[in-house]
Amino acid sequence: MSFVAAVRKELHHTPLLWLLVFVPIVLAAAKLKPEAHTLLFVLSVLAIVPLAALLSHATESVGAKTGDAVGGLLNATLGNLTELVIALTALYAGQYMLVKASIAGAIVTNTLFMLGASFLLGGLKYPTQEYNRVSARMQAGLLFLATVALLIPSAVAQADSAAGAIFSHKLSVGLSVLLIVAYALYMLFSLKTHRELFASAAHGGDGEVPWPMGVALATLAGVTVLVAMVSHIFVDSVQKAAETFGMSPAFVGFIVVALVGGAAEMASAFSGARKNRLDLSVGIALGSASQIALFVAPVLVLLSFFIGPTPMDLSFWPGAVVMMLIATLTAALVTNSGRSAWFIGVLVLMVYLIFAMTLYLLPPRAA
Amino acid sequence: MSFVAAVRKELHHTPLLWLLVFVPIVLAAAKLKPEAHTLLFVLSVLAIVPLAALLSHATESVGAKTGDAVGGLLNATLGNLTELVIALTALYAGQYMLVKASIAGAIVTNTLFMLGASFLLGGLKYPTQEYNRVSARMQAGLLFLATVALLIPSAVAQADSAAGAIFSHKLSVGLSVLLIVAYALYMLFSLKTHRELFASAAHGGDGEVPWPMGVALATLAGVTVLVAMVSHIFVDSVQKAAETFGMSPAFVGFIVVALVGGAAEMASAFSGARKNRLDLSVGIALGSASQIALFVAPVLVLLSFFIGPTPMDLSFWPGAVVMMLIATLTAALVTNSGRSAWFIGVLVLMVYLIFAMTLYLLPPRAA
Amino acid sequence: MSFVAAVRKELHHTPLLWLLVFVPIVLAAAKLKPEAHTLLFVLSVLAIVPLAALLSHATESVGAKTGDAVGGLLNATLGNLTELVIALTALYAGQYMLVKASIAGAIVTNTLFMLGASFLLGGLKYPTQEYNRVSARMQAGLLFLATVALLIPSAVAQADSAAGAIFSHKLSVGLSVLLIVAYALYMLFSLKTHRELFASAAHGGDGEVPWPMGVALATLAGVTVLVAMVSHIFVDSVQKAAETFGMSPAFVGFIVVALVGGAAEMASAFSGARKNRLDLSVGIALGSASQIALFVAPVLVLLSFFIGPTPMDLSFWPGAVVMMLIATLTAALVTNSGRSAWFIGVLVLMVYLIFAMTLYLLPPRAA
Repeated sequence: MSFVAAVRKELHHTPLLWLLVFVPIVLAAAKLKPEAHTLLFVLSVLAIVPLAALLSHATESVGAKTGDAVGGLLNATLGNLTELVIALTALYAGQYMLVKASIAGAIVTNTLFMLGASFLLGGLKYPTQEYNRVSARMQAGLLFLATVALLIPSAVAQADSAAGAIFSHKLSVGLSVLLIVAYALYMLFSLKTHRELFASAAHGGDGEVPWPMGVALATLAGVTVLVAMVSHIFVDSVQKAAETFGMSPAFVGFIVVALVGGAAEMASAFSGARKNRLDLSVGIALGSASQIALFVAPVLVLLSFFIGPTPMDLSFWPGAVVMMLIATLTAALVTNSGRSAWFIGVLVLMVYLIFAMTLYLLPPRAA
Repeated sequence: MSFVAAVRKELHHTPLLWLLVFVPIVLAAAKLKPEAHTLLFVLSVLAIVPLAALLSHATESVGAKTGDAVGGLLNATLGNLTELVIALTALYAGQYMLVKASIAGAIVTNTLFMLGASFLLGGLKYPTQEYNRVSARMQAGLLFLATVALLIPSAVAQADSAAGAIFSHKLSVGLSVLLIVAYALYMLFSLKTHRELFASAAHGGDGEVPWPMGVALATLAGVTVLVAMVSHIFVDSVQKAAETFGMSPAFVGFIVVALVGGAAEMASAFSGARKNRLDLSVGIALGSASQIALFVAPVLVLLSFFIGPTPMDLSFWPGAVVMMLIATLTAALVTNSGRSAWFIGVLVLMVYLIFAMTLYLLPPRAA
Repeated sequence: MSFVAAVRKELHHTPLLWLLVFVPIVLAAAKLKPEAHTLLFVLSVLAIVPLAALLSHATESVGAKTGDAVGGLLNATLGNLTELVIALTALYAGQYMLVKASIAGAIVTNTLFMLGASFLLGGLKYPTQEYNRVSARMQAGLLFLATVALLIPSAVAQADSAAGAIFSHKLSVGLSVLLIVAYALYMLFSLKTHRELFASAAHGGDGEVPWPMGVALATLAGVTVLVAMVSHIFVDSVQKAAETFGMSPAFVGFIVVALVGGAAEMASAFSGARKNRLDLSVGIALGSASQIALFVAPVLVLLSFFIGPTPMDLSFWPGAVVMMLIATLTAALVTNSGRSAWFIGVLVLMVYLIFAMTLYLLPPRAA
């Protein structure tokens, strides 16, 4: 099966992929009309969504062929590849406010929007849904600790105004190393010593036929390049476009980037909820958020020494700290009972909506 | 049975109602000695307590006659009628500090004082008390989310000094609309789609005989007018009286108004605890606090555009934010196990006492 | 059995006690070289560890002879005797920053380090460990409430800059009285009315033979005097030594004092975890932290009126407040499931490590 044939079959199975037509359009438009920021912004958003879905399927296909351990490792590392590529492009452009907003936004969006919408969509079909309380609690515990670890520099720095910029940089680097070590141990834990706890979340794309190895690897490489190219256009146009739409940069990073980058995972989580497999939805939502905190964020800090104009630290603006803490606490409280009903979903989504509204109304500020 | 006969029978059944004698006394005193603030304050407190008890019984009687759905709706909407009327009177007088303190105080008092005293009173009679963990957790989850939604403007505004007053007003209005929508959905959830989860809390006044419809409606109307009249005296006298007693306005709003307004509900909750029906107590305490956050607070914000001198926003002073968050987190942690013992009650009450002490000692500040 | 014989037998049983040789060495060194701060610091740390172990065993021996109620009371009161003596010495020297850091550090170290290392050490031997969820939750609830009570003055004072120093002092005294009353009621609860909930944690030194009463009492008295003498040297040398090692005073109080003072309890907790008796470990860790908050801290505030240069209040620096809240929330979330695995231990330890790193890098500040 050639690459083109595989793509065509996918198109039939996943109508979302028709959006792929926007990939050449946005690349052409960027060449022809580099100053049409609003148009480029909209086109690049439309182009990233199907690319993220392709990346997700390619990663799973490689995983399915290489066996559980390697496949799990790949899935865990590349599961947030789209977010990582967008953030790297913003890092390269020195837009640290956007990078940090997209880290914070991915954690908040995964825990509140993805979880809340899964509960709501599932709850509209089934009166009460039960899921594995033990593994949900363990995952919520991991997420809480991972987020806390990520937030300590901001919390302390901000509580303690005597702490200076050098302190913040040193701490961010030390912390990033610790987080990556913790992530490596988390791989060992979830893929080797205690994989039965995470079993149900491993097969995100159940029902889909995996691609042959060659096709999958070629897709992975090719699509990553395409995501990078489109991200470049996206990052360049987002600032100006946001002004046109009246959106603050914080809103764009927090909400728009997070929703765009996580579209593929959301599709899996929502489909799981509709099939009364809430374990799957909870696993994707909490697992993905943990991965951002334990892997994507520290990798970006360490890479900022090589690719950004100046090193980036891990101190978030105060409102983001509050939102991340509330989001993870909400996830911990809400998944505690192992039961869900539609109104729980409504309330979790409402917290997300309020965050979004707050960020939308927030007057612009310097990074 | 005439109105007078009904009142007389109630007096026999509920000795608290003898306090009704203070209603004419305070109204007369306000006419004769409008400058005796301390006296008027004490008299109005004594008069509001039995009126609140009458309102509560009247609401339940109407509910009992109209059937489950309408009755539940009435109960849920009018359950905090006393608090609402007091707050409206303060709003009309432009005392926004008092209004906000009474919102925050009602949430804190319901979760800490009502819950803690129920655990203590029940625990003195039974070594360990069990209650329905599943519904307690769901209610604690609702309360946490409702409170968080209410607090976001304060948390963000305060974390982010760049945010101005216009931002705060716009956000408060948007948020109020969202909260009321959430409350309407909550009605649908708790009265229609999942009413079995809330069943035990529905019959607050079990054992009492409901009044006939006419008596109940007349009482509802008449007593609401009386509460409004007494509240007017209360709000006018409270500032000056507080100075005499050495109490800060924050203390008055947080502690005095909340205890006075919630007296009737507390009586039901405590009686439930003594009868080993802790489900009832937990339901009343958490349900009432949720209602303040999801219904009373946003209604006051929206009404402030019509009846107050200037619109009121939803940003609380920082200490109130901390107290509300701690109160709801405490409720979530404490109700998590589904078991209670007397010392749990002591500790929850101690947190309340410490809040009260802090507010009492706090030097006065401008609203 | 003479005192010397008892000590000799202990030396064989507990190799840690060989460190006792540093007690005379540090006392001699302090006489001969009072200006060798770094040396004296290291020697005093080495001398306090075995003294703490002796104190712990002596307390348990007295407890074993006097029966459950009195023994439990003794254990509960003297369980943190080492921390108390070190803090008293620092209080006498007017080093309030060190006193407060050691209170905060003991709470954080007990909940994060002791709990995390117990989970890790136990988890390396057993894939999953279960422990009594009900009592763990109740203890975590107590700890949360105790810590919240301790933190309210700091949280409010800091959120509310209008509050002055007089406010803070009045509040600290009132609060200390409340905390001690709560502690007395906690004794009643855990030793009398509900002792079955705490049963497993009562016998910290199982397997060890209790000493005869005379030996135990003599050890208790003699070792307390020795701890006081060594603490005096420790407190005098710590400031200068910390500068040599590049450690901030916050780091010394938070991390070094807490680890040194809690060494004996940690040995018991870790040994319990290795024997798959995680109830014991959780009980020691959470119980000891609660005791610091409910007993040691308020006693120090009240004693500061008699032995310190000026009275001490209970307001902690903002970073310490954040760390204590996160530590107790972590304990509550982590013990919620009643199950543990090695990676949970790793994550809890990581939060502790990050706190330690933050404090180490923090630029020095005035108390």
